[in-house]
Amino acid sequence: MPEDIDTPCLVADGDRVKANITRMQVAMNERGIRLRPHAKTHKSVAIAGMQLAAGASGITVGTLGEAETFAAAGCIDVFIAYPIWASERKAVRLRALADRIPLKVGIDSVAGSEQLGAAVRDLQVLIEIDSGEHRTGVPAPKAAEVAAAATRAGLEVVGVYTHGGHAYEDATSVISAADDEVSALGAAVDALGAMGLRIDTASAGSTPTALRSARGCVTEERPGTYVFGDRQQVSLGAAAPEDVALFVLATVVGIGETWLVLDCGAKTLSKDRKPWMPGHGILLDFPGLTVDSLYDYHAVVPTPPGVDAPKIGERVTVVPNHVCPVVNLFDRIHVAVNGQIVDIWPVDARGKNA
Amino acid sequence: MPEDIDTPCLVADGDRVKANITRMQVAMNERGIRLRPHAKTHKSVAIAGMQLAAGASGITVGTLGEAETFAAAGCIDVFIAYPIWASERKAVRLRALADRIPLKVGIDSVAGSEQLGAAVRDLQVLIEIDSGEHRTGVPAPKAAEVAAAATRAGLEVVGVYTHGGHAYEDATSVISAADDEVSALGAAVDALGAMGLRIDTASAGSTPTALRSARGCVTEERPGTYVFGDRQQVSLGAAAPEDVALFVLATVVGIGETWLVLDCGAKTLSKDRKPWMPGHGILLDFPGLTVDSLYDYHAVVPTPPGVDAPKIGERVTVVPNHVCPVVNLFDRIHVAVNGQIVDIWPVDARGKNA
Repeated sequence: MPEDIDTPCLVADGDRVKANITRMQVAMNERGIRLRPHAKTHKSVAIAGMQLAAGASGITVGTLGEAETFAAAGCIDVFIAYPIWASERKAVRLRALADRIPLKVGIDSVAGSEQLGAAVRDLQVLIEIDSGEHRTGVPAPKAAEVAAAATRAGLEVVGVYTHGGHAYEDATSVISAADDEVSALGAAVDALGAMGLRIDTASAGSTPTALRSARGCVTEERPGTYVFGDRQQVSLGAAAPEDVALFVLATVVGIGETWLVLDCGAKTLSKDRKPWMPGHGILLDFPGLTVDSLYDYHAVVPTPPGVDAPKIGERVTVVPNHVCPVVNLFDRIHVAVNGQIVDIWPVDARGKNA
Repeated sequence: MPEDIDTPCLVADGDRVKANITRMQVAMNERGIRLRPHAKTHKSVAIAGMQLAAGASGITVGTLGEAETFAAAGCIDVFIAYPIWASERKAVRLRALADRIPLKVGIDSVAGSEQLGAAVRDLQVLIEIDSGEHRTGVPAPKAAEVAAAATRAGLEVVGVYTHGGHAYEDATSVISAADDEVSALGAAVDALGAMGLRIDTASAGSTPTALRSARGCVTEERPGTYVFGDRQQVSLGAAAPEDVALFVLATVVGIGETWLVLDCGAKTLSKDRKPWMPGHGILLDFPGLTVDSLYDYHAVVPTPPGVDAPKIGERVTVVPNHVCPVVNLFDRIHVAVNGQIVDIWPVDARGKNA
């Protein structure tokens, strides 16, 4: 890894990112499914451009601020997959954005639909269906009730969407979560059809389920993390270790009796960790070494006897548990090809939570 | 809380921040101890200015990038309490900064001292002592070995420092961690004295231990979180609930069967959580409601039967577990006094990890 950047920093393998983008696009093309990648993973206009150039039909975002950032950079087909509460200020911002690009927004309640319809007349919306994750989204049988409220409020219901996030519960839940996505969307499409509503989009999506739920009534997939992969996706079987494309470059700043310390703390790696995943990241070139505890600026890595470990001052490559919150901690991604930094991708939408 | 800002956002109670700064300064003045607050908590030039105006002797930071940010804003007495590995590029940056302000840097190894001495001649350094947290720092008896290496490398050893971070292990460990800080620093001062080295600083510090370890050989304290307080500090008895001064303002975007959803996800609240602390934050005005699970943009709050809960669209105030990583996720802090936003404090050193 290159020496001409300071640690801790984010380094992407440029070739792998391109290959990951192509592989998912080809898989969706083969299935006749539209790909609308979730840009919350990379928050980068450069990467969104690569995804669109490869054939993506548009992008997905999680916040109004992200939508504004990508729209300002020229992305004209943006879906905010989130039931935004259109408060007074957000109503103004939503109207301004909808005047500029063909925006789509998620809804999942009668009250949210009324608020959104009062904010932006004729806005295209998709109803979020809860396929088993139990956070936002309505159960499929309730889709008709939300659709009726949305229509009354002057919104145009163009689709339904779901996120089978319960695929992340453990390595065995991926298949059932994908099945849940397909059946929940199918039931919702039927419920809307029964009230005479014709929709053109049934959108599923998460990186673990994308290839498995791209069937039946599903017309679109919205995976995000596939672009980089991470330790979690490898554990779930959703990325091969050799396809992981984003790393934290860190320096060994201390050697304790039975541990070493890296300069990539919680403000670099984040403390995002599934209950089934031990530690906060692994050292790519040192099998058996895992980040055990994280402080703001310190990562502590136990060094068991007999296990090869780096020396003080050495640079190491850390594979994060979950890349999405990690990218959001950086202003830029250094792009390496053949061990050389060849480009920088700004994290344009970093911190755009509102 | 004010309606003229979009959620999720960070809101500080301006009066409480001032009171927290004054209270800690007065306590240290009474003990004749210098206060050098850790600026990694707020990363804000405006707040550092308030701390210095109240009587702080300088500031502490955790990274070279933070030091550069505060130095550029006029803070002339900066201690980087971290054993920076002075790589080629960091050596250049350290020399430039040391030419500009009377910089002090932490060291804790022979190799690190040699690297740092080769980078910056005559730099003032403090030796980090491990008082029980077991991350960086040397055991007190090893201080002399590091001091000798530092002196040979052309560095000027002006002190020793420790961080009794094991105070955070649970609510009972605060007193013993403070005792450990005092005894470890005492032993290190003796070890350096025995080799004829006179130092002027023995620096302890963490918010839970600051008032308890300000005694004996200790000449300086470096608490950081006291400026805001947080849920963790309240649990440890290091902040009164009515002194907590930093909050996340969020909106209820969804109501499920037995839960509600806020728009402050992991990219807002962070997943920082001690093993002994259930959940990821509490709702200030709704006793019994705790953020149970966090996704990038969703916070899920279970709503037990009979417990008062907010309605969809309502704004709520969330007390974060640990403010340091939360502040680092925002570009600015809105400052409220009497329910009105009266100022904005930029988070100047946000993301300055390298």
